[in-house]
Amino acid sequence: MKLLVGTVGQTRAVFRVDAAGAVNLTQAIPAIGTDLAALIASPELLAQAGDVTGDAVAVADITPALPVEAPGKILCLGLNYIEHIKEGGYDIPDYPAMFMRTRQSIMAAGAPLIRPSCSEKLDYEAELMLIVGKGGRHISKEDALDHVFGYTVFNDGSVRDYQRKTHQWTPGKNFDQTGAIGPYVMTPDSLPEGATGLKIESRVGDEILQSSNTSNMIWGVADTIAIMSEFTTLEPGDLIALGTPPGVGHAKKPEPRWLRPGEVVEIEIEGIGICASPILDEADLAKAAE
Amino acid sequence: MKLLVGTVGQTRAVFRVDAAGAVNLTQAIPAIGTDLAALIASPELLAQAGDVTGDAVAVADITPALPVEAPGKILCLGLNYIEHIKEGGYDIPDYPAMFMRTRQSIMAAGAPLIRPSCSEKLDYEAELMLIVGKGGRHISKEDALDHVFGYTVFNDGSVRDYQRKTHQWTPGKNFDQTGAIGPYVMTPDSLPEGATGLKIESRVGDEILQSSNTSNMIWGVADTIAIMSEFTTLEPGDLIALGTPPGVGHAKKPEPRWLRPGEVVEIEIEGIGICASPILDEADLAKAAE
Repeated sequence: MKLLVGTVGQTRAVFRVDAAGAVNLTQAIPAIGTDLAALIASPELLAQAGDVTGDAVAVADITPALPVEAPGKILCLGLNYIEHIKEGGYDIPDYPAMFMRTRQSIMAAGAPLIRPSCSEKLDYEAELMLIVGKGGRHISKEDALDHVFGYTVFNDGSVRDYQRKTHQWTPGKNFDQTGAIGPYVMTPDSLPEGATGLKIESRVGDEILQSSNTSNMIWGVADTIAIMSEFTTLEPGDLIALGTPPGVGHAKKPEPRWLRPGEVVEIEIEGIGICASPILDEADLAKAAE
Repeated sequence: MKLLVGTVGQTRAVFRVDAAGAVNLTQAIPAIGTDLAALIASPELLAQAGDVTGDAVAVADITPALPVEAPGKILCLGLNYIEHIKEGGYDIPDYPAMFMRTRQSIMAAGAPLIRPSCSEKLDYEAELMLIVGKGGRHISKEDALDHVFGYTVFNDGSVRDYQRKTHQWTPGKNFDQTGAIGPYVMTPDSLPEGATGLKIESRVGDEILQSSNTSNMIWGVADTIAIMSEFTTLEPGDLIALGTPPGVGHAKKPEPRWLRPGEVVEIEIEGIGICASPILDEADLAKAAE
């Protein structure tokens, strides 16, 4: 099933996207609510969602919203593609580097991705993201895929000079409104097991910036769930980002390739969709709010 | 004002602690609710809380709960006392190392601090913690103290081998139920400006493990708020931990001093109180739940 949370006019809803368009699930079953939390909590509701019939609206008329409005936590793998590790000057690890993002740092696909006033070193990172379904601790690798509600696209927008001010990446990974999520969420039955074998790309216009395949991840979806749940209880709706392939802007030769206001950066994962974000200067966001 | 969130019998409430004991604020003003969120949101309610009169119960009869049940984020400074930086083998930085903790990693003072089954390298870290009052972004150092709701005690429990599996500390700082908070929250008017000049100590029984003063912090409360709000919007109820002084267990000579099940680790900050946590082996927690 392909799900989309968003608004049409003033109405926010969860939609199921089929060939004919987007069917409003919330209208048909109000208990579904206005993000994926209820569907994540209830496999029965999810099964009912698959059976909803009704008029379809055009996907183009829907403004995407975050799939999960209030994720309990956002855990990210830092270095998960060998060629990206090399371009960053890091050694190949035997355990993944992990960091966290705040709720304020993420936003829906389509919304502006903010270049902060304090830095021009704004970078993109194409990533597969999973949404935790059933929670748990000490989840084995064998059981891990049963804990995935769905997969979406993530742009792990990073402010590189702040990321590397110290050895801890937190500031550069947590500027407000720099991490784009969505718009589509695919349930696992709609993708290859563990979301492997999917082309993953980032682009600005015709310029292909990253191009790889989710099969190149060192730690796959099941590994990652097992590793993270060794230390933390995963909860329904938690978001887990799976790291980015080579080709990030700061490693481009002969010069870094930073994102500039006015550009639109697109992250595409085969079988899931495109997450597009227009780059906006923070100063212009402030002006727009006046 | 000295505040305490906790339960007496089956009733959870917010208490004001005076010389005579703990006055139940929630009973007097139901809008105060069962954690500090409402008082943080409303300076008027906080002023009313100061005027409540009523019978006091003994503080010893109250089982502490988290001051803020659902903090939006938990941001921590990693290296904020020069002597602790040296004992960890790090260079003196010109910007603070920051990391985040999950909600699952924290618990109230008095609750067990869990030594995970996968490691014996469980360490204590005495820290001052602030609770954000008024939120904001780009808060100047000059205005920063106006954004503090209160101060409490934090034990930033760390699983050292997982903290150093890679350069990113996230796993070792995020084992479930390893970060103890509380029990008392002092509003800023009850402490020196910026909570400076307070003795900070960690102990197990008579064994003094850390002993320093909050004036030895490189980045004080105002600096920290200014630095963090450069990249993230601080929200009411966010928790900010301010780093630990020297004397942590992993740096003890001739041998590291890990916390062991059965011990009770105490963190004390002058003028705020003592945060005590009995160490419990994860296996025993699982048994207790059976």
